[in-house]
Amino acid sequence: MSERRDTNLLPKCEANYAPLTPLRFLERAASVHGDRVSVIYGELSYTWAQTFERCRRLASAVSRLASAGDTISVVAPNCPAIYEMHFGVPMAGVVLNTMNIRIDANALSVLFSHCETKAVFVDLEYLPLVHKALQIWLSSSQPPGKRPHIVVIEDRCISSGTGSMMSSKKKYLAGWGELVEYEELLQNGDPQFVIQWPADEWDTISLNYTSGTTSQPKGVLYNHRGTYLMSLIAIIMEMNENSVFLWTLPMFHCNGWCYTWGVAALAGTNIIMRSVDVKLMYELIAKHKVTTFCAVPTVLNMIVNAEQHIKKPLPGRVTVVTSGATPPPSVIIQMEQEGFSIVHVYGLTEAHGALLVCDWKPEWDDLPVQTQAHLKARQGVLHVGLQAVAVLNPSTMEPVLSDGVTVGEIMAKGSTIMKGYLKDKEATRRAFEGGWFHTGDLAVVHPDGYIEIKDRSKDIIISGGENISSIEVESVLHQHPDIFEAAVVARPDPFWGETPCAFVKLKETGNTITRESLIAYCREHLPRFAAPKTVIFCDLPKTATGKIQKNVLRERAKALDPGAQQSSKL
Amino acid sequence: MSERRDTNLLPKCEANYAPLTPLRFLERAASVHGDRVSVIYGELSYTWAQTFERCRRLASAVSRLASAGDTISVVAPNCPAIYEMHFGVPMAGVVLNTMNIRIDANALSVLFSHCETKAVFVDLEYLPLVHKALQIWLSSSQPPGKRPHIVVIEDRCISSGTGSMMSSKKKYLAGWGELVEYEELLQNGDPQFVIQWPADEWDTISLNYTSGTTSQPKGVLYNHRGTYLMSLIAIIMEMNENSVFLWTLPMFHCNGWCYTWGVAALAGTNIIMRSVDVKLMYELIAKHKVTTFCAVPTVLNMIVNAEQHIKKPLPGRVTVVTSGATPPPSVIIQMEQEGFSIVHVYGLTEAHGALLVCDWKPEWDDLPVQTQAHLKARQGVLHVGLQAVAVLNPSTMEPVLSDGVTVGEIMAKGSTIMKGYLKDKEATRRAFEGGWFHTGDLAVVHPDGYIEIKDRSKDIIISGGENISSIEVESVLHQHPDIFEAAVVARPDPFWGETPCAFVKLKETGNTITRESLIAYCREHLPRFAAPKTVIFCDLPKTATGKIQKNVLRERAKALDPGAQQSSKL
Repeated sequence: MSERRDTNLLPKCEANYAPLTPLRFLERAASVHGDRVSVIYGELSYTWAQTFERCRRLASAVSRLASAGDTISVVAPNCPAIYEMHFGVPMAGVVLNTMNIRIDANALSVLFSHCETKAVFVDLEYLPLVHKALQIWLSSSQPPGKRPHIVVIEDRCISSGTGSMMSSKKKYLAGWGELVEYEELLQNGDPQFVIQWPADEWDTISLNYTSGTTSQPKGVLYNHRGTYLMSLIAIIMEMNENSVFLWTLPMFHCNGWCYTWGVAALAGTNIIMRSVDVKLMYELIAKHKVTTFCAVPTVLNMIVNAEQHIKKPLPGRVTVVTSGATPPPSVIIQMEQEGFSIVHVYGLTEAHGALLVCDWKPEWDDLPVQTQAHLKARQGVLHVGLQAVAVLNPSTMEPVLSDGVTVGEIMAKGSTIMKGYLKDKEATRRAFEGGWFHTGDLAVVHPDGYIEIKDRSKDIIISGGENISSIEVESVLHQHPDIFEAAVVARPDPFWGETPCAFVKLKETGNTITRESLIAYCREHLPRFAAPKTVIFCDLPKTATGKIQKNVLRERAKALDPGAQQSSKL
Repeated sequence: MSERRDTNLLPKCEANYAPLTPLRFLERAASVHGDRVSVIYGELSYTWAQTFERCRRLASAVSRLASAGDTISVVAPNCPAIYEMHFGVPMAGVVLNTMNIRIDANALSVLFSHCETKAVFVDLEYLPLVHKALQIWLSSSQPPGKRPHIVVIEDRCISSGTGSMMSSKKKYLAGWGELVEYEELLQNGDPQFVIQWPADEWDTISLNYTSGTTSQPKGVLYNHRGTYLMSLIAIIMEMNENSVFLWTLPMFHCNGWCYTWGVAALAGTNIIMRSVDVKLMYELIAKHKVTTFCAVPTVLNMIVNAEQHIKKPLPGRVTVVTSGATPPPSVIIQMEQEGFSIVHVYGLTEAHGALLVCDWKPEWDDLPVQTQAHLKARQGVLHVGLQAVAVLNPSTMEPVLSDGVTVGEIMAKGSTIMKGYLKDKEATRRAFEGGWFHTGDLAVVHPDGYIEIKDRSKDIIISGGENISSIEVESVLHQHPDIFEAAVVARPDPFWGETPCAFVKLKETGNTITRESLIAYCREHLPRFAAPKTVIFCDLPKTATGKIQKNVLRERAKALDPGAQQSSKL
């Protein structure tokens, strides 16, 4: 037995154990492919050598604004600066907090306070919002000495020089001593800054708030190990050497599902878009030979419904990773007819992005298109970076039957699960109860082992004791030729408890569509109890990432005039 | 500062920290792609579900032969059993020791003794060898009670049933009580065996002896973390979903450069070949639509020189990962002309396989073929799994100039470097001195950062104070149209210290080639001092992996009749 101890006690040393960190990807890309284009944004373009230098300058500046272990926030849409911050901020040992740009000043002030941010990097367009948020925060609690620094990111592609910037400065921030512009900050940074590599791969690299209620902010912490692994998994799932990645997905969303770092691992090219614009997407895809982009189903819907004249031929295989909601099979079919290759993944902030991937099986190639789309609309199976995923009965923690019918909660374990919630040991404990991360998503397991989500726990509609999956009702509505998009939520009902209420945006087809005709259409394709009892025609409210805000719709459904109630016994 | 501690002290738990291990790849492949073909060997074929079941049965049997932390050896060419052992042995917590099948009984006995193997799995063909080795070992030291178990692997594709097996048993192992056949062992194994997952990712998974001298065996230990990471890196470098991997590379060589586990990570298909046979290779590539194989340059040379009638059209893109020696540019050119895509990597046992990869740059596509081949013959740059690679002056540990001329030693650090040498703390300390793993390979760094090996420290020829790279001389010889293969070593010389001595195997072209004409040819293409002074026509001795045995040639050169010495002042 002595030799066994001998082998296992060979100690880790600097030569054979390095803390895993995605920051190394940038160092390698710069040293190996320094001349290759790293970032393209409008007329701007950088090489990996330049991006590395800019990130080191940034890290040096960050180290003057905050100490190791502090947090720095960014409020910005996609732009080169937020990309660089994914490397430059943790290269100073500081935690990167990317904020959702669609939240309001009150919510923002709560989050700034919660993470005790030491500096806010803000895109010029969002300066008024941030200024207001900071005022709310500072007027309430913050002692004057602890005011965060402000760094303004001026978008050099949409503004015409520093004139607009200077006037904004005056307008919103009179008397704020620390205001500085991002490019100035970099100019004063040290390109030879000594990078603060993580001493432990468990160290926090970033902080992402989930879109929960702001009264109890859920700050999801990522560590270097998890993000390193997730970056590799992301590229194994979807990308190859020489990938050109189009940033339609906001980087503030789960650090761009870790593709921020993943593109650097491949020394690929980032094509950055400030916001989603289908016409520009087609132009950029053609111009830069884009190979990959990520988008929520709503964006796919915009693509398939775009006017023909803005569509351009694809330059080659374009892989689209879709997640964030269940894509309607009809949208998958249309996207593939347009020539895109759809990869459906399911994930959530706590999983660094993807948790499940709908791995394609070659034997499905010969099935009818409609069947293929339904198979692909399932969330799928665990990716290779996880230890286990299961659909469990949350009371017994036993797996549900793989019968495609029995509903349980998706749970997972592995090194690409978050480190925990910031300052919330109780929520962390609950999230990890029983040694599994509880996703809160309800799903079935099909006989072939593929998982299909039925709903978020809170999105399920319970009507007369029947569980109705809002996703299934939406899927039927999406097949209607006159519907652009639809969302279904529960409406309180004195008799049934809840009934399905559909919010629908129609296409401009000129056809006459009535509430009654849609309800009749649903009754043809669904069990009678699952067909909506209420239909409302309107635009659908969305989050910054393009997800439909069901919480807003639920409030609207709750506030509907009870006189309009169509409840009746069947 | 309190919140920083708070974030970093969020403890690891079962939900968010799993020891990395490549064994999970098999579990996932079986659960996700259980019906997909895992292994094809002649007429035999298994699915991932079957392979998983067989490995669990094997693990259950192994757990009866050895305790956790013990070592079990295998002496076998490529076959399904050795593939299964890569999962089944560590699934019992036991270390897998894959032996080189070309070493002799004396050497084998030293290694069995060194690792105190608890069981030897042996292919029937190698049973006489193993029996002899065990007898040597047991006659010297081993107390009778500690005799290792023997498991005989009968190759079901080359033998016609158990008859031959039984007679061998009688012939070689009369009285050896524990003899059992591999398939019997599996039949008696438990398909529901509870897998012994590693408690710590630093735990040893395998033991690979390097082809050093056997008086001081160097047993390279791999851990679960390093092999997990290397498997992902290997597939990022060369493979995609649905890869079909042809096993020309012996699995006993660095665990098949971690492709053993990597193919499972992709749920790809293993096409197993017992030994290299170019005709069969072409047949298998066409029949199974092979996408990837690994081969040393000697095998590439066999492919390009194969008779035309055995070559078949390739079924699609076939990527060939070559390593183990520097491929002559002429061989690269011919392989690519045949339609193969060559990826050149450089590695060694201590690095789990690859250390450097010659990443291709798109801008090289337009260069002349000859230039392209020379660029690709360079060893390249660090892969994304490593922390750092550098060419250092071993005395000062300073990096050499990136001038393509100054020679230093390749050193590396990162989590895909071995855990250490078994029972050799001093060799481990030396290998990791200064926080770097010392490869012992001498190289230059080109101005573009790409590393090119000049020689193993021991292969360099020092003649009249000039360093001669044996690789450069060989590269010139390989361009000669009548040469099949060549190796150059140092020959002791009273005047020059050493002179280059070339061992050459000619093609059967019918041309008359003399020693003198070859020396004259070399003088045309090399500095005068670097041209061989001795040329010997013969077959070249090779290791099991097809590497030319320069140590054998050095002995031959040393033993040459001094009268044949062609040394003279220039």
